[in-house]
Amino acid sequence: MIETPVIMVNYKTYSQSIGESGLELTKKIENAAEASWLVCPQPVDIRTIKEKTNIPVFSQHIDAVKPGSNTGHLLIDAMVDAGVEGTLINHSENRLKLSEIDEIVTMCKEKGLTTVICANNPATSAAAAALKPDFVAYEPPELIGGDISVSTAKPEVVREAVERVKAVDPDVKVLCGAGVKNGKDVKKALELGTEGVLLASGLVKSDDVEGVIRDLESSL
Amino acid sequence: MIETPVIMVNYKTYSQSIGESGLELTKKIENAAEASWLVCPQPVDIRTIKEKTNIPVFSQHIDAVKPGSNTGHLLIDAMVDAGVEGTLINHSENRLKLSEIDEIVTMCKEKGLTTVICANNPATSAAAAALKPDFVAYEPPELIGGDISVSTAKPEVVREAVERVKAVDPDVKVLCGAGVKNGKDVKKALELGTEGVLLASGLVKSDDVEGVIRDLESSL
Amino acid sequence: MIETPVIMVNYKTYSQSIGESGLELTKKIENAAEASWLVCPQPVDIRTIKEKTNIPVFSQHIDAVKPGSNTGHLLIDAMVDAGVEGTLINHSENRLKLSEIDEIVTMCKEKGLTTVICANNPATSAAAAALKPDFVAYEPPELIGGDISVSTAKPEVVREAVERVKAVDPDVKVLCGAGVKNGKDVKKALELGTEGVLLASGLVKSDDVEGVIRDLESSL
Amino acid sequence: MIETPVIMVNYKTYSQSIGESGLELTKKIENAAEASWLVCPQPVDIRTIKEKTNIPVFSQHIDAVKPGSNTGHLLIDAMVDAGVEGTLINHSENRLKLSEIDEIVTMCKEKGLTTVICANNPATSAAAAALKPDFVAYEPPELIGGDISVSTAKPEVVREAVERVKAVDPDVKVLCGAGVKNGKDVKKALELGTEGVLLASGLVKSDDVEGVIRDLESSL
Repeated sequence: MIETPVIMVNYKTYSQSIGESGLELTKKIENAAEASWLVCPQPVDIRTIKEKTNIPVFSQHIDAVKPGSNTGHLLIDAMVDAGVEGTLINHSENRLKLSEIDEIVTMCKEKGLTTVICANNPATSAAAAALKPDFVAYEPPELIGGDISVSTAKPEVVREAVERVKAVDPDVKVLCGAGVKNGKDVKKALELGTEGVLLASGLVKSDDVEGVIRDLESSL
Repeated sequence: MIETPVIMVNYKTYSQSIGESGLELTKKIENAAEASWLVCPQPVDIRTIKEKTNIPVFSQHIDAVKPGSNTGHLLIDAMVDAGVEGTLINHSENRLKLSEIDEIVTMCKEKGLTTVICANNPATSAAAAALKPDFVAYEPPELIGGDISVSTAKPEVVREAVERVKAVDPDVKVLCGAGVKNGKDVKKALELGTEGVLLASGLVKSDDVEGVIRDLESSL
Repeated sequence: MIETPVIMVNYKTYSQSIGESGLELTKKIENAAEASWLVCPQPVDIRTIKEKTNIPVFSQHIDAVKPGSNTGHLLIDAMVDAGVEGTLINHSENRLKLSEIDEIVTMCKEKGLTTVICANNPATSAAAAALKPDFVAYEPPELIGGDISVSTAKPEVVREAVERVKAVDPDVKVLCGAGVKNGKDVKKALELGTEGVLLASGLVKSDDVEGVIRDLESSL
Repeated sequence: MIETPVIMVNYKTYSQSIGESGLELTKKIENAAEASWLVCPQPVDIRTIKEKTNIPVFSQHIDAVKPGSNTGHLLIDAMVDAGVEGTLINHSENRLKLSEIDEIVTMCKEKGLTTVICANNPATSAAAAALKPDFVAYEPPELIGGDISVSTAKPEVVREAVERVKAVDPDVKVLCGAGVKNGKDVKKALELGTEGVLLASGLVKSDDVEGVIRDLESSL
């Protein structure tokens, strides 16, 4: 079970997160972090990062397929074997069909994986909540990778996302993401009713990973 | 505003619904039907059917695009110009991304079109309801085109779909579909809490369209 | 059989091409055009334009489906019934899987429709030619809708596309498109070995449709 | 450079190919194989199999993305870092858009990876050849995972695929696959002009992997 507040770091397909670099990055997080953190490495790096660090590892995506004749897919059984504890689902950079999101959530529950459905606005956040994942992560796509945090740029929309999710299912926890870079962003996000943040470039592409980690933690 | 109970007929891409045949089919429905009916013709036939009959016409699908540089898409403005009053969204044979479904619902509200989001199970029906469409149509894909009606084969699941939709938003009306062929199927569907049915082959491919219509109506 | 050189006008989903506006536009082309022209209207307008004008009508897209249980698709049989003589396939705004392109070409041959596969560079143009369509239309996506014609901006690439297509199959005719706006653009395109052009905004969104048509024709 | 004749083993998402099982399977191939073999493991297993065996490793798929903001994709740079020497592209279970296949081939050439485009019939095989990959693998989808080998069931179609590929580009090597299970199948495939086979369940799901390997090799 993932403790909250949580900071989820999406390694995306950044050069800075491949192979040895991704492992070093994870070790820096492991050494500096005291709160609840987790990382989402690239598929080829999941096993190594899981073996060589103690940070919980999530997949960035899982395909809605079962063991069998599928080529080039990310199979949940292989992810479980590699040690992941959960997965992002429906990230803005990998949007899925409604029925697929539901299938993946169902598969994850069967396998005991924690689910984080990403959603692009309060309406889709509420829809995601109806599928009963562990988390819904509201991320306005236009702020992803940018300089202004969602919690600063759209506080009222974050609050609305939290309210709409909780109205559908109060057990679903809400995260927010997009532009999150420092402790102030996280503090604001928590004040708005979220239980954590999803971030990527703000940490992964930083020249001072340890500094960013300490700053992020300072707000928890 | 579509009156309920309603019988929605999806013309799909059946040979029996193309051009002159589709127009004849619609005239038969127009002549025999007394209750609230509507039809979803193929795109090339929408304008003619709208002009030559009085049955409300829905589109089978609308693409999440705006006027501009898009090729081969179904534009909402063109559909409105052709006279449609609403559209199916996310039919099992044309599943969409969660964010697209939301975009299409939003576009339809701006244009005054009635929205019917199709969903494959109670969980996705609840998710669809969170997007605030006019209708959610629960259709288990394995029964579509078959001989046993959803209301006969899965009464408890229909009831669950109704309950989960209403728990999310009591204003959203629920339909069911798949295998619906006769008045008994419709009667059962209404008893389970739905406000109408979505049907296709049971009527379109029937040798006795008028007979099927009368039988369907007998139950309302 | 489409005569060449040909000018194909893609109506896309422009507001200027919907319903009555699309019909007026087509009548202007019909009245002003003397050479070989054809138009690709929006699906809901195909039947009316076909009935009320004499310009050959193509579809912007056809789905790789057969008559039966498909919802929201563009069925070739319905297109044939509506009077289309051919179709664009794989436009940059509607890219298809390789196997789908092949399926659609095969279906079109069975139904006697003329096929125009769009391709984004010389390599994919050559690949398209291997599927034995009637035409391959090379359109660099970055110039689509812009102010500079492909034949002006990339003459050597147009020539390379022609060469690579002809090397694979000398019977396949080559068109080019993107940014085509006037007679000079067309003249240049023909000099580079193409047998016509595909254009859209340069004509459809023009304030002087008749003027553009005359200018385009002046070069043939 | 991959020597031919070659036997490519696609591990798909079979339970038998996950983690330790996939490693054991690869070691069996390594120990028993004398000819040119290569394996396509699941993404999470690529790094381990590469590190612990000497069999060349290919990816089952690579996404057409560059380093940066992409979530849940298979990045070529990460694959190269993990040690893959090539990749399957456009497998029947993971069909791609024509333009994506071209993008991936181009990316692979830049990175020095060997490319194997899969194709479902002679026409798409010829189209694939026009993109100048190292290999085209013809696999009729209806025979994949079945009991009858493509080389037995459709010898004339295999020959046609070889001819059409070579007519487009004689430098492109042809493989065939689907239902390949034993040495006789391979021998037949080579007689028909291919330079190897792609196989999956016939080996991966076999109770006697070593026996299958020896039998496959006996024909080379």
